[in-house]
Amino acid sequence: ASTMTLRDKQQKEEAADGGPSAAASSGGQKPPKEVVSYWGVQSPKVTKEDGTEWKWNCFRPWETYEADLSIDLHKHHTPTTFLDKFAFWTVKSLRFPTDVFFQRRYGCRAMMLETVAAVPGMVGGMLLHCKSLRRFEHSGGWIKALLEEAENERMHLMTFMEVAKPKWYERALVFTVQGVFFNAYFLAYLASPKLAHRITGYLEEEAIHSYTEFLKELDKGNIENVKAPAIAIDYWRLPADATLRDVVMVVRADEAHHRDVNHFASVIV
Amino acid sequence: ASTMTLRDKQQKEEAADGGPSAAASSGGQKPPKEVVSYWGVQSPKVTKEDGTEWKWNCFRPWETYEADLSIDLHKHHTPTTFLDKFAFWTVKSLRFPTDVFFQRRYGCRAMMLETVAAVPGMVGGMLLHCKSLRRFEHSGGWIKALLEEAENERMHLMTFMEVAKPKWYERALVFTVQGVFFNAYFLAYLASPKLAHRITGYLEEEAIHSYTEFLKELDKGNIENVKAPAIAIDYWRLPADATLRDVVMVVRADEAHHRDVNHFASVIV
Ligand SMILES: [Fe+2]
Ligand SMILES: [Fe+2]
Ligand SMILES: [Fe+2]
Ligand SMILES: [Fe+2]
Repeated sequence: ASTMTLRDKQQKEEAADGGPSAAASSGGQKPPKEVVSYWGVQSPKVTKEDGTEWKWNCFRPWETYEADLSIDLHKHHTPTTFLDKFAFWTVKSLRFPTDVFFQRRYGCRAMMLETVAAVPGMVGGMLLHCKSLRRFEHSGGWIKALLEEAENERMHLMTFMEVAKPKWYERALVFTVQGVFFNAYFLAYLASPKLAHRITGYLEEEAIHSYTEFLKELDKGNIENVKAPAIAIDYWRLPADATLRDVVMVVRADEAHHRDVNHFASVIV
Repeated sequence: ASTMTLRDKQQKEEAADGGPSAAASSGGQKPPKEVVSYWGVQSPKVTKEDGTEWKWNCFRPWETYEADLSIDLHKHHTPTTFLDKFAFWTVKSLRFPTDVFFQRRYGCRAMMLETVAAVPGMVGGMLLHCKSLRRFEHSGGWIKALLEEAENERMHLMTFMEVAKPKWYERALVFTVQGVFFNAYFLAYLASPKLAHRITGYLEEEAIHSYTEFLKELDKGNIENVKAPAIAIDYWRLPADATLRDVVMVVRADEAHHRDVNHFASVIV
């Protein structure tokens, strides 16, 4: 269940009575000085299928997967209710300045937007977690689904970072944008999870669109179709000779998946 | 990688160009009306090892595990630095009112405290996630480890809920306590992750102590050793005739594990 095996095999002693405080107060059982810096917490060596060492700490072999490229990219939730329309136009109005800012620099755009894309899943997962605790309620799998979306978006970022190295002013920008977006999304989610998921659904529709534009630029030769970063090859189980184009394809499929999850969440919450 | 398979098998069409907005704007491709409420997101039927249907949505078969009962229960981090001492005495001072409030009602105590115990992992995981995004940094497995701790604590709560049903005033209390504790821990983590993890480490030491007291009361017969709740049997892979005592044993082992993770995190952050 845990990413790391943190068991300490050196101390096997099991006892049914006396807490840690008991051990500390009774002179004879006082833990030796070394204990202070000794917690024996170590990641086990993880290997790849071919036996070579696993070199990523930010994800593990069992989190890798093959993206479903057959997912429908055109599906669109037609806004009907006031909430839908509000969400739709919020996203559309955010797209305009984004287009102006990034122009055709899709690598850079992808990298910058993925720093924001990983926020909604984390905020939603966290709030549902707290709600489940507060109400003594089972969670129905949504907490995990949203946290996994956040992890997946973070992997998108880790991937595009390799393609377009962030510059100092981009780092400064992300700092501000994340602060604003995190709080705005947090408040939106508190006010109406329905609205928040709908907004994310539309953001994902825009993401699909911009990755499609990215692919067009790659095909036109305006962006060089470089080798896929090693982290992407391991995460999406791509062939060793995969290119940036293959990466954009699988990332876009992920976004389509997020779109479906969030539009669905908006209906059922 | 995902808890739910959310792929829609009915629409297999794959297209390389045109985002969802293109589909919406061109008259001919306009999605049919049904699309609005049709996202085809469905959990697949999951079965237990014996072929019967999996009845839990809050966790899945692959998240179950056998607790390591050999873990050292007496390990204690002797406070040395000012930060350590501050963390230690903060936790000790929180224990006094808790002892007074709950007296010997360990079932109730466990249930109430687990609603709080699931907060630190979520706060820490969320803040590290945001930091990783902001700084364009790989995360080193800690985000997942902390989020898993939060999930694990939520499962403790789901378990003890079955043993001690929450009363209305307990629900009201949890609401307030969570609000205060979440914000306090959030600020503490922002100010010093080292301090925050140290506090959690000491909280876990206290948790081990109070589960040990729980076991004593069970052995004395002051608390009835009822059958283990079904959810606990499935989560910790306990035998079908497991009792509350077995549950407290595995939960206590989990707490010892969290103690090690958090004291270790406090050293390395
Ligand atoms: Fe993404
Ligand atoms: Fe996405
Ligand atoms: Fe716990
Ligand atoms: Fe714990």
